[in-house]
Amino acid sequence: MKAIPFTDVTINDSFWAPRQATNSKKTIPHEIEQCRTTGRISNFSKAAGTMDGNFEGIFFNDSDVHKLVEAASYTLYTHPNPEWESQLDEVVDTIASSQQPDGYLNSYFTLVEPQKKWQNLGMMHELYCAGHLFEAGVAHYQATGKAKLLDVACKFADLIDNTFGHGKRDGLPGHQGIELALVKLANVTGEKRYMSLAEYFVTTRGQSPHVFEKELENPDLPGGLGAYQHHYTRDGKYEGTYSQAHKPIQEQTECVGHAVRAMYLYAGAADIAAETGDTDIMNALDALWQNVEKRLYVTGGVGPSGHNEGFTQDYELPNFSAYAETCASIGLIFWAHRMFLLKGEARFIDVMETALYNGALSGVSLDGTGFFYQNPLASRGGRHRHEWFGCACCPPNIARLLGSLGQYIYAQSDNDLWVNLYVEGTATTVAENVPLKLTQETDYPWSGNVKITVNPEKPTKFALNLRIPSWCSNYDVKLNGETYSVKDTTNGYLSIEREWKPNDSVNLNLDMPVERIYAHPNVRDNLGRSALQRGPLVYCFEDVDNADGAFETLSLNNDTMETVYDSNLLNGITTIRANAKVYDTAEWENNLYLTKPKSNQMQVTAIPYYAWCNRGAGQMAVWVF
Amino acid sequence: MKAIPFTDVTINDSFWAPRQATNSKKTIPHEIEQCRTTGRISNFSKAAGTMDGNFEGIFFNDSDVHKLVEAASYTLYTHPNPEWESQLDEVVDTIASSQQPDGYLNSYFTLVEPQKKWQNLGMMHELYCAGHLFEAGVAHYQATGKAKLLDVACKFADLIDNTFGHGKRDGLPGHQGIELALVKLANVTGEKRYMSLAEYFVTTRGQSPHVFEKELENPDLPGGLGAYQHHYTRDGKYEGTYSQAHKPIQEQTECVGHAVRAMYLYAGAADIAAETGDTDIMNALDALWQNVEKRLYVTGGVGPSGHNEGFTQDYELPNFSAYAETCASIGLIFWAHRMFLLKGEARFIDVMETALYNGALSGVSLDGTGFFYQNPLASRGGRHRHEWFGCACCPPNIARLLGSLGQYIYAQSDNDLWVNLYVEGTATTVAENVPLKLTQETDYPWSGNVKITVNPEKPTKFALNLRIPSWCSNYDVKLNGETYSVKDTTNGYLSIEREWKPNDSVNLNLDMPVERIYAHPNVRDNLGRSALQRGPLVYCFEDVDNADGAFETLSLNNDTMETVYDSNLLNGITTIRANAKVYDTAEWENNLYLTKPKSNQMQVTAIPYYAWCNRGAGQMAVWVF
Repeated sequence: MKAIPFTDVTINDSFWAPRQATNSKKTIPHEIEQCRTTGRISNFSKAAGTMDGNFEGIFFNDSDVHKLVEAASYTLYTHPNPEWESQLDEVVDTIASSQQPDGYLNSYFTLVEPQKKWQNLGMMHELYCAGHLFEAGVAHYQATGKAKLLDVACKFADLIDNTFGHGKRDGLPGHQGIELALVKLANVTGEKRYMSLAEYFVTTRGQSPHVFEKELENPDLPGGLGAYQHHYTRDGKYEGTYSQAHKPIQEQTECVGHAVRAMYLYAGAADIAAETGDTDIMNALDALWQNVEKRLYVTGGVGPSGHNEGFTQDYELPNFSAYAETCASIGLIFWAHRMFLLKGEARFIDVMETALYNGALSGVSLDGTGFFYQNPLASRGGRHRHEWFGCACCPPNIARLLGSLGQYIYAQSDNDLWVNLYVEGTATTVAENVPLKLTQETDYPWSGNVKITVNPEKPTKFALNLRIPSWCSNYDVKLNGETYSVKDTTNGYLSIEREWKPNDSVNLNLDMPVERIYAHPNVRDNLGRSALQRGPLVYCFEDVDNADGAFETLSLNNDTMETVYDSNLLNGITTIRANAKVYDTAEWENNLYLTKPKSNQMQVTAIPYYAWCNRGAGQMAVWVF
Repeated sequence: MKAIPFTDVTINDSFWAPRQATNSKKTIPHEIEQCRTTGRISNFSKAAGTMDGNFEGIFFNDSDVHKLVEAASYTLYTHPNPEWESQLDEVVDTIASSQQPDGYLNSYFTLVEPQKKWQNLGMMHELYCAGHLFEAGVAHYQATGKAKLLDVACKFADLIDNTFGHGKRDGLPGHQGIELALVKLANVTGEKRYMSLAEYFVTTRGQSPHVFEKELENPDLPGGLGAYQHHYTRDGKYEGTYSQAHKPIQEQTECVGHAVRAMYLYAGAADIAAETGDTDIMNALDALWQNVEKRLYVTGGVGPSGHNEGFTQDYELPNFSAYAETCASIGLIFWAHRMFLLKGEARFIDVMETALYNGALSGVSLDGTGFFYQNPLASRGGRHRHEWFGCACCPPNIARLLGSLGQYIYAQSDNDLWVNLYVEGTATTVAENVPLKLTQETDYPWSGNVKITVNPEKPTKFALNLRIPSWCSNYDVKLNGETYSVKDTTNGYLSIEREWKPNDSVNLNLDMPVERIYAHPNVRDNLGRSALQRGPLVYCFEDVDNADGAFETLSLNNDTMETVYDSNLLNGITTIRANAKVYDTAEWENNLYLTKPKSNQMQVTAIPYYAWCNRGAGQMAVWVF
């Protein structure tokens, strides 16, 4: 199974298309400007020797520029803009100019510790930065047809391949990402060596003593020992869970450590499993998926703890202190998408959709220039988006996700087509050697009505597999206007297999009631509480919509909730209006305990979680009583 | 207003009388044995030079023996036992033998740091131990008529009075207790100097630099600097809140620091206010009381934090981690009782009764030989009572409380009588020069029906004030069998003023329904939850009574709850039976979120909080949904 690439998909709905436009017009220019003013781009010029000065910022800052080139490439394809294209070419030239004769490319090491390359793989992000360079090279080539950065990437990949691997040096990235990047590089170049190197990096884990452990013996470690030991040792003893290096990938069954690292590793491992058919890796990924489903915020956030930016234990999902990094939700989308491609099951897309519409999308403001690094599920007013970060991984990550969104909507196997996400727009592909266009018309996620027009150039037989989302318990289907008798779904898909003729149409109507979601009783913060969800959207309450903001005591009535589309609110959203009891605060002034506390009935309004904090920082709660 | 002393009160009900009997037969002998085997008693012999060896245990261990002598004295009065009396006399002789020629008595300093007396008042508990000696001397004299220990106490008090005070040395106890002890000593001896010294200790606070701060400059401090600095400094700067030394008592409005220290101070301050009529201290006590009512567990526990064994902030009342030291609840009883004596208002007795029947009484097992130091309001099974502690303040404290319980039941002012607690038994006193006996017949706390017989030797006029507990919203009264038309209560008392004749009777029927108590919404742990209370008793759920122990998800139905007296359970208790929904655990095995989780109806049984953990350590919860 493979995704229909973003280059063959258009999006012109009322939900995502405006976000992509904002991504193109606001986010990418804003981020390029941030990369310029923070010295991220000039670091490459300095490394190239075309500019004087010292390295600025954090040692992994190159990766932000690479990720931004990737994002801008996607965006230039979907939203062509000659002015930005030439600016992007300039950035690409600047990056390329810093490549060393042997192919090495990392402005920090070139400028600051040139004699200490590859000596602190555990912490210094050289291979991570390389991975983002590879992804940028591939995206820039796919989007613009220009091979300059791809060539730079391959030259560096060759150096790395000559350096690391079986029979060469032991090594792997302390921060993953290069694995899935090498797979992309292999696929676009046809170069098998890159795939093998990706497999090597995925599978080089759990040795004793481990590469990272041996590095610790170096008293002259680049970057210093401090941060390293904090993450890799416990009680003075080496322990590789932070970067998932504690066990061979085939034996990993629990999501541990830094969440973004974990997501990138599992995504890369899924790529390798798809390529090699390695059942041990597949089984491990199944177990890891089962485990992540016990560690998943209802918004699709993962990694609750700020301490390790990562995982803790099953069901530990605090709301106020939720770390739930934007990058981790994006990484989960990468992993979930690959799990679907590997297994063809809709349950992975269910999680992907949740993360996409909620925990990842909340990472960027509606105006495109504010970013959440952490995505809490409750706030007393102290949280707000920032225009940039010292560690700026999230802003370009959400930009590349939005830019490449098209690739997550459709997939195809040898014979059949899959519709995973309901987004108005088109896809073009070839089924059974017949060129074909799919057209979706829908107001999703505000409505569950979807019309799909199937347009093969000539009649051709294949199965059209429509995902029935896990949140949907009732739906009906019409085929060319006639009621289509729905058979059971298989792996979460309604499959319509027939000879498709030009202009055949399918109308899928997904019931989209407001649901109250309850959490596992072991999720202590949510005991007695529920969250509201409608379709793929998780809702929240903000004080700006609800007079006294007493979310903590708000108790929703069980009567019917009303949905109201408000085109003027937050760029157009469907709100949920509900009746709720809220404590009468007056009588609590002088009472600590009461036997019959008075409550007032009030109407409360919930908005989609992704849209919170776009009207100033305020109180917010997803889970209410 | 003064309490009718324990010496004039008998208790022969089915609730407290058996606890007093167990206290006499089991607790006191058990604790004397513990004091013997841990070297606490022989420390005095060693200090007296009648035995060889080093000081054993913690530097304040003398206080445990003093407190036990106090407890045993009360108990010998209510439950005479010649064998124990001679054993107690032996202990008293041993303590007395360790008194130094100048009156000093402290086995730690005499044996370990004889040259460093009074140099570390902040931490080394010399004045605290002295206070407990004074209370023991007074109690032993009151109970047995023997003055030996009282004389020892006075001799030591004279030394302290000659050492500290205005125009003498600055000083005050780092751990309070001596203040209220000196008041007792003054009252029993008629010696005004002891009252003045108590007033001095209560009011010597808030100076800058403070005595404790100056002590810190001594590099050769007894006990060492370590523990001291931890408690008295923040960010390297002296700060006296731990022992309430940060401000003059007249300016204190917030309950801070170590909870037992705070309670003992406020109790002593109330004694001084009663004696001197100082309105500044009275106003401060009013403010402190208002504040403690925002920091009070529903069980009458105070001091939520183990870090400082004390107070944190308003409404911070976590359940699982509740420290709520037994001694702090007992200290609250001391303070509340004195606030009532000062102001004649039932609201203080309401809190006293809550602490007495719940958070203090839970401190001792039904068999009398197991003790809680901390009294959590929820447990996952890891909490249990201990037979003794290294720091053993709580076991003798609960023993002296139970032994002296009689004094909390009745009070009298110049003209009138007050009935504060409903306990079957008698009180003898004199009203308007007429000897009088009050008799209570009641099954309280299992029933709210109380019959009080008033037996003056001849007709005499006074007001009999019956406390209407704050938990009671409906009651009726009969006087000599006739309905008595109830006027409004004043300060929480129903006052019946008349000429009382021999054998007049009052029947008070207090409605005692099961109530669901809700906590202030700022008490985060209790949001959405309620606790069950009936009469003065707070209830809890234990897993031993409730098959699957799923307290965390238990959701009580709102229908009527049933009360069932079970004479075989936990020495006879009224249980509360309720219907509750409990999640069907099976469906949660593979689900983190569900829209319509199934619940099973089950009958659940609650028991009084004081009785928990008497059938093995298990799960427990006071607050349920």
